[in-house]
Amino acid sequence: MYTVADYLLDRLKEVGIDDIFGVPGDYNLKFLDHITARNDLNWIGNANELNAAYMADGYARTKGVSAFVTTFGVGELSAINGLAGSYAENVPVIEIVGSPTTTVQEGKKLVHHTLGDGDFSHFEKMHEKVTAAIAHLTVENALTEIDRVLTIAMTQKRPVYLNLPIDVAEIKVSKPNTPLLTEQKELTNTESELLDIVEKALTNSVNPVIIAGHEILSYHLEKHLDNFIQKYNLPVTTLPFGKGAFNEEDPHYLGTYSGSPTTEPLKSRVDEADLVLLLGAKLTDSATSGFSFGFTDKQILSIGSTEISIHGEKQAGIQLDRFIPALKTINYSGFIGEINPLKRLSNGENTTEKLTQKHFWEMVETFLIQGDTVVGEQGTSFFGLTNVPLKKAMHFIGQPLWGSIGYTFPSALGSQMANKASRHLLFIGDGSLQLTVQELGTALREGLTPIVFVINNNGYTVEREIHGATEPYNDIPMWDYQHLPLVFGGTKDSVATYKVTTEIELDNAMKAARKDTQRLQWIEVVMDQEDAPDLLKKLAKNFAKQNS
Amino acid sequence: MYTVADYLLDRLKEVGIDDIFGVPGDYNLKFLDHITARNDLNWIGNANELNAAYMADGYARTKGVSAFVTTFGVGELSAINGLAGSYAENVPVIEIVGSPTTTVQEGKKLVHHTLGDGDFSHFEKMHEKVTAAIAHLTVENALTEIDRVLTIAMTQKRPVYLNLPIDVAEIKVSKPNTPLLTEQKELTNTESELLDIVEKALTNSVNPVIIAGHEILSYHLEKHLDNFIQKYNLPVTTLPFGKGAFNEEDPHYLGTYSGSPTTEPLKSRVDEADLVLLLGAKLTDSATSGFSFGFTDKQILSIGSTEISIHGEKQAGIQLDRFIPALKTINYSGFIGEINPLKRLSNGENTTEKLTQKHFWEMVETFLIQGDTVVGEQGTSFFGLTNVPLKKAMHFIGQPLWGSIGYTFPSALGSQMANKASRHLLFIGDGSLQLTVQELGTALREGLTPIVFVINNNGYTVEREIHGATEPYNDIPMWDYQHLPLVFGGTKDSVATYKVTTEIELDNAMKAARKDTQRLQWIEVVMDQEDAPDLLKKLAKNFAKQNS
Repeated sequence: MYTVADYLLDRLKEVGIDDIFGVPGDYNLKFLDHITARNDLNWIGNANELNAAYMADGYARTKGVSAFVTTFGVGELSAINGLAGSYAENVPVIEIVGSPTTTVQEGKKLVHHTLGDGDFSHFEKMHEKVTAAIAHLTVENALTEIDRVLTIAMTQKRPVYLNLPIDVAEIKVSKPNTPLLTEQKELTNTESELLDIVEKALTNSVNPVIIAGHEILSYHLEKHLDNFIQKYNLPVTTLPFGKGAFNEEDPHYLGTYSGSPTTEPLKSRVDEADLVLLLGAKLTDSATSGFSFGFTDKQILSIGSTEISIHGEKQAGIQLDRFIPALKTINYSGFIGEINPLKRLSNGENTTEKLTQKHFWEMVETFLIQGDTVVGEQGTSFFGLTNVPLKKAMHFIGQPLWGSIGYTFPSALGSQMANKASRHLLFIGDGSLQLTVQELGTALREGLTPIVFVINNNGYTVEREIHGATEPYNDIPMWDYQHLPLVFGGTKDSVATYKVTTEIELDNAMKAARKDTQRLQWIEVVMDQEDAPDLLKKLAKNFAKQNS
Repeated sequence: MYTVADYLLDRLKEVGIDDIFGVPGDYNLKFLDHITARNDLNWIGNANELNAAYMADGYARTKGVSAFVTTFGVGELSAINGLAGSYAENVPVIEIVGSPTTTVQEGKKLVHHTLGDGDFSHFEKMHEKVTAAIAHLTVENALTEIDRVLTIAMTQKRPVYLNLPIDVAEIKVSKPNTPLLTEQKELTNTESELLDIVEKALTNSVNPVIIAGHEILSYHLEKHLDNFIQKYNLPVTTLPFGKGAFNEEDPHYLGTYSGSPTTEPLKSRVDEADLVLLLGAKLTDSATSGFSFGFTDKQILSIGSTEISIHGEKQAGIQLDRFIPALKTINYSGFIGEINPLKRLSNGENTTEKLTQKHFWEMVETFLIQGDTVVGEQGTSFFGLTNVPLKKAMHFIGQPLWGSIGYTFPSALGSQMANKASRHLLFIGDGSLQLTVQELGTALREGLTPIVFVINNNGYTVEREIHGATEPYNDIPMWDYQHLPLVFGGTKDSVATYKVTTEIELDNAMKAARKDTQRLQWIEVVMDQEDAPDLLKKLAKNFAKQNS
């Protein structure tokens, strides 16, 4: 019998999903039967629901979309922070919540996983603010609602929420007979007008600069952005929030712009541009070191999926996946000025000196190769990586707007699931790792082989930089990081572990890890608790100011 | 300078809080300074926010109230499932959320930990349904709002939420000059009338039975309930949701009633009572094996803090901490029938046989001593413990209504913090432990010494019983449970570990653990993945029916 559950799974498959994450619960078990019965979908059980949401987010950033399943009440609320992060950073994640039968819900029964008040609507309402759409599936609306919310997820690149009562999942229905997504390729009038505005602005500009933002990644428009840049010979930079949106080895790439701490000549080049064309970018505090960018509304033309800003005048956003590809059609002769592309430094000799943050990130720069995916936890890792130039065909994942610590560990695993061919390098601090560490079990069970750099600097260094450098609240319990993978199911066959304190030790570990592609690589990097990347030190000062 | 932060902390201290849980974040760091500056409050940093909420819940169940601190957005949403559990099960937990400055919020700035839409009200609104009160503190309202929401937490025994912008925390104010809580001891008219109703109902009853529920524990009314039972010689039972509300060694105690699977003669005694007087009890599905209780509205007189039900007629609840103490004043000559108190079985010989669930829980019964606190994770543990008779002066913690797996590990630690004199015994399955395991670091750092029984039965046995016994979604990665504490900071000085598979091995481990009071005791108990307590097997069938 073909059911609502099967219809939903066929639609998920249609948009490109091969793996579904989540945690079982008695209100979703029967739905999970429909997943495990298929050969074309994998069930990836997570250790907890927040980790499932994070892992799904990473998968979606790389594969374009993802789905995870939780149970009603307890499961969905555990995951809601993950979904909020996907919303803030424009990642299309589909959450399916298995809920009690229609009879139980309509009967207002005092069942488990409720507040005991007979009201089954609380939790879906709590999801309204952190999703682009919610649906409560019924016998009458199931198919149309599935199609509606999935379409919203795919076009708005934001999470959606499906409440699926167990009995509704089992209703007999027909297979879909039309495709879910019908591409609307023609520009709207607003979009055409906007194209004219860009054309005029570029034509009138002497020293324009393009700032590519995170929505280029959300909509996977890297190729289209590249076409635009190449055709018109434009200088381009990215924000830390959007790093990876443009090939950092390309001669048009100026480096990563992060407000006042940005190094010269990039800083002046951006601040003094007569046109700053932002594409899918948001000037958030963490992307700009506390709003310390040196340009103003007069210079800004900003085009995004939720908002347009033309020299300070705001209007609603447009559909970026129509607009960005159309940019190559404008009538503009191209930029003719000089471009100072990003310069690369080779790191010095590796010695037996203790590792510093400065030397560490220089070594990381040397370590990266084309095709890698780099994931940077919000903290020393993200800000250390901001100024590490990427290589061609690299992906970068961070979460600078939402900034939920612990996010990157499951996220890196999810992205690795989505693209097993790309070597994944995760940089995460000890404090952050502690939040989500149990997903090591999932990594090892699934045979994932990322290279994980665990920066052991004895606590929350990012916070020590902002406030309370020696306060006990920035301390964490000291774990035996090197042996962690072995208790979570790892063996000598599935994981290699290293603990390094000096440059030469790290160099040896990096070389060994790069060659050892069949096992998870777990490198504990010991650094001083008060050492931090320069950018972080400067940003922390601005954050401290913002908080006073 | 005395500030809003100090005022809040003085009020927390006043209601009985000595330890504050949480996770630091840049929006709460300065507030934390006020905690670490005091000698009379301890800051207990958690590995993540959900664990903080769970640990605070356990602390409040034992100490009467608790508080934890998170940061705005990411932190509070990670914790919200914990708060929802406290709401569902009437536990007064105070969450303090450090948020951006008033200037940043009013300026609608695109700062980190927001959705990037300039709206700072989303997350506190999401808390409305799962708290008894929320407050957004401002210069004008800070002190009155603090007093208002703390009073609600203490009188309604439910969680409350305080949004504290960092700048508001630092405003100069005066110390409180009146006590927070003014006791209202006199009964309201409704309460007096209700007392008359109880008096008449008992007087007219030939074979009444009292069912004590979880709110007796929330309001810490065990002593007052006992006075009532002793004075009128009444037979009393508890639901699994409320176990521990009455001394199970007392001759008036009939055993734990859990619907149709309840053993005789208790089952008939309750089902056939001409008066079933429920005190602070809720007849939820997990407390009654899927609503399989054998009595009806005709027999029921139910008195609770949120609802009264008089033979099916509902009205609003009353203040239990006034009402229950007043029960001993009714004009009633007392029950004169026979009471069949709970019988205890001594477990048979311990042999070299592999452990079964049946024998395991019999051994647990023998192991318990007066004064212990027993914590049972929702799953085989909770349902195994339901029919284990407690000893005098024991506390019992479970979460059968909300039923969030993983809850009990941090909760047991929180309760142990609140009462270090009571030996804490936690029973938790492998599947549940995986959700919250990182709090082991906190346990070891704080030198806590519970006895933890980790039931390793290879996955989610409670769910295998309901649906999908051999489906892969009920499997979990196999960890090396025995060595877990050692990677989370444990040493031979702080933890003793055991792995047992036979009766005699468990017996030896139990004896060693009982004597070894200065170290955390970690006992991995290997049992068959399809073995389960009888009660769970019966309940699972009823749950499967409820889900179809």
